[in-house]
Amino acid sequence: MKVCIIGSGSWGTALAIKSVVAGNDTTLYCRRPEFRDELIEYRENKSYLPGVALPNELVISSDLQTSIEQADIVLIVTPSIHVRTALQNLKQFAHKDQIYVLCSKGVERNTGKLLTTVMKEELASIGCHLTVLSGPNHAEEIGRNLPAAAVVGTTSMEIGKKVQQALHSKKFRIYTSDDYIGVELAGATKNVIALAAGIVDGLSLGDNCKALLLTRGLHEMTRFGLTMGARKETYAGLAGMGDLIATCMSPHSRNRSAGQQLADGKTMDYIMNHTNMVVEGFFATSIIRDMAIEYHVEMPITQALYEVLYEEKSPRLALQELMGRDSKIEVS
Amino acid sequence: MKVCIIGSGSWGTALAIKSVVAGNDTTLYCRRPEFRDELIEYRENKSYLPGVALPNELVISSDLQTSIEQADIVLIVTPSIHVRTALQNLKQFAHKDQIYVLCSKGVERNTGKLLTTVMKEELASIGCHLTVLSGPNHAEEIGRNLPAAAVVGTTSMEIGKKVQQALHSKKFRIYTSDDYIGVELAGATKNVIALAAGIVDGLSLGDNCKALLLTRGLHEMTRFGLTMGARKETYAGLAGMGDLIATCMSPHSRNRSAGQQLADGKTMDYIMNHTNMVVEGFFATSIIRDMAIEYHVEMPITQALYEVLYEEKSPRLALQELMGRDSKIEVS
Repeated sequence: MKVCIIGSGSWGTALAIKSVVAGNDTTLYCRRPEFRDELIEYRENKSYLPGVALPNELVISSDLQTSIEQADIVLIVTPSIHVRTALQNLKQFAHKDQIYVLCSKGVERNTGKLLTTVMKEELASIGCHLTVLSGPNHAEEIGRNLPAAAVVGTTSMEIGKKVQQALHSKKFRIYTSDDYIGVELAGATKNVIALAAGIVDGLSLGDNCKALLLTRGLHEMTRFGLTMGARKETYAGLAGMGDLIATCMSPHSRNRSAGQQLADGKTMDYIMNHTNMVVEGFFATSIIRDMAIEYHVEMPITQALYEVLYEEKSPRLALQELMGRDSKIEVS
Repeated sequence: MKVCIIGSGSWGTALAIKSVVAGNDTTLYCRRPEFRDELIEYRENKSYLPGVALPNELVISSDLQTSIEQADIVLIVTPSIHVRTALQNLKQFAHKDQIYVLCSKGVERNTGKLLTTVMKEELASIGCHLTVLSGPNHAEEIGRNLPAAAVVGTTSMEIGKKVQQALHSKKFRIYTSDDYIGVELAGATKNVIALAAGIVDGLSLGDNCKALLLTRGLHEMTRFGLTMGARKETYAGLAGMGDLIATCMSPHSRNRSAGQQLADGKTMDYIMNHTNMVVEGFFATSIIRDMAIEYHVEMPITQALYEVLYEEKSPRLALQELMGRDSKIEVS
């Protein structure tokens, strides 16, 4: 297969390597020619995935037209904030029967739309197949060839199978799921819980408390997903529990780290101005909280985070109130 | 209420403190008089819960008869290997209408029986109420008054409510569940997954791989539980996912640490001979693996662990084989 990756950050670069390993003719598209030249010169993405050699077979290109036109499968791996622009730029070269795989997680900041909605708005009229990839996938680890797995959400299992066949390899196992909505929603909502998990870390509340938060967090994510038409099993799987655990436990996670900084007394604005990476959970919190109100879904953790981020509530107080909620029967 | 705790290890001591905090007349029973004297002298359990002051109101006693006869609620918190003996010693003083709460996790080593079965065999004829407590509860953290929650499994919600009322406090929240079997089984089976998680840590396979293992591990635990009559929701709750995460992530966990030592090339026998604590997962692996075969439950992680522990398979090979299993559709 011919695979093109749009977005040369850490995750895009790691996926490009995995695509080569899986045997595809792979092009990593790089918008800025000077960055393309740097990648070609060093055969390494020193800015976003340092220490990982880019395979010789990997084509690195700034020619969007050729990159897209020749591709059977296109992976979209830009930060959520750039997904629409990236799609708008490439759609003139897109054609029917291509498969697009959304690998970015989050929501569109200014519209509050899910990224699959953005993708649909931009590409559906062309007749491309739209899928979404998610799972416990820290790019840093996958770049270092540590074992991992991901799930492709699709409305057509035939298309899902094609993506699976293209990307599956020994150390990066791809599963398919027909819960297209759930796979994306789980990935977007877990960033909110990851912020809360970072607060638990920052306040040194311990592993019991964090396990409690993740358990309740997954319940909250699941409730939200079910309301939006997702399936429960997805949340018990790689895109749900798996991704949540990896995100909330790992030092690599930006959202978790941002939560830790909140606990240290930093504000959202300060954190945004002092990091070169996007903290998806900041925007997701506000958007998902609004959707929860609109659809009458009880999301106490998301609400608490909203108050911390947008209403200056102290993280400690927010956590205390969360822990003090009255809900006495777990299973009956 | 009058609460008696049988077992003065770290978890028994932490629970005794929580019982005092919750307002009960609490007795910590201590089998060895010289250890009782030490606890009384220092008002601290220097051997098992160092650095935590025992409240003045806590009665520390080696008088089993008085401790049991006066109690409304008795918590059983010995290592699994001593549960039957403890019950056999106390049953002569037990009486109808008392509530027994099994707080130990594991299986009886020589018989392969669940601890609730052991409790039933020893106490049911007396007419006591039998319940089980589980959740993400590292004693070290609860002793330090960090927030946590646990769930009481009971066949009678009325009895469950009594245990909840007795033990619930602001920093140690107690939930009830009528899935008596599930609450215990989840606690026993998660120790097997914790061993595997320790191997992942020891082999430095990363957070993605560990999240994958935990996700598949919870599926495996749930499948087993459902076959035994437990309920799915329990596994998505504190006694399932919550306890699993806390156990697999924490430096406090003996089972996780033992897995790490296995990855370092130590054998089960070596680890057992060089630690002063019981690694419940060693026995649980063999017993649960046998039950899985008997009841035709697919438990690949448990089987892999069994081969590492009892058939000298290399942990690295076992993990590789697990990761290479063919199971391509996650949700359909």
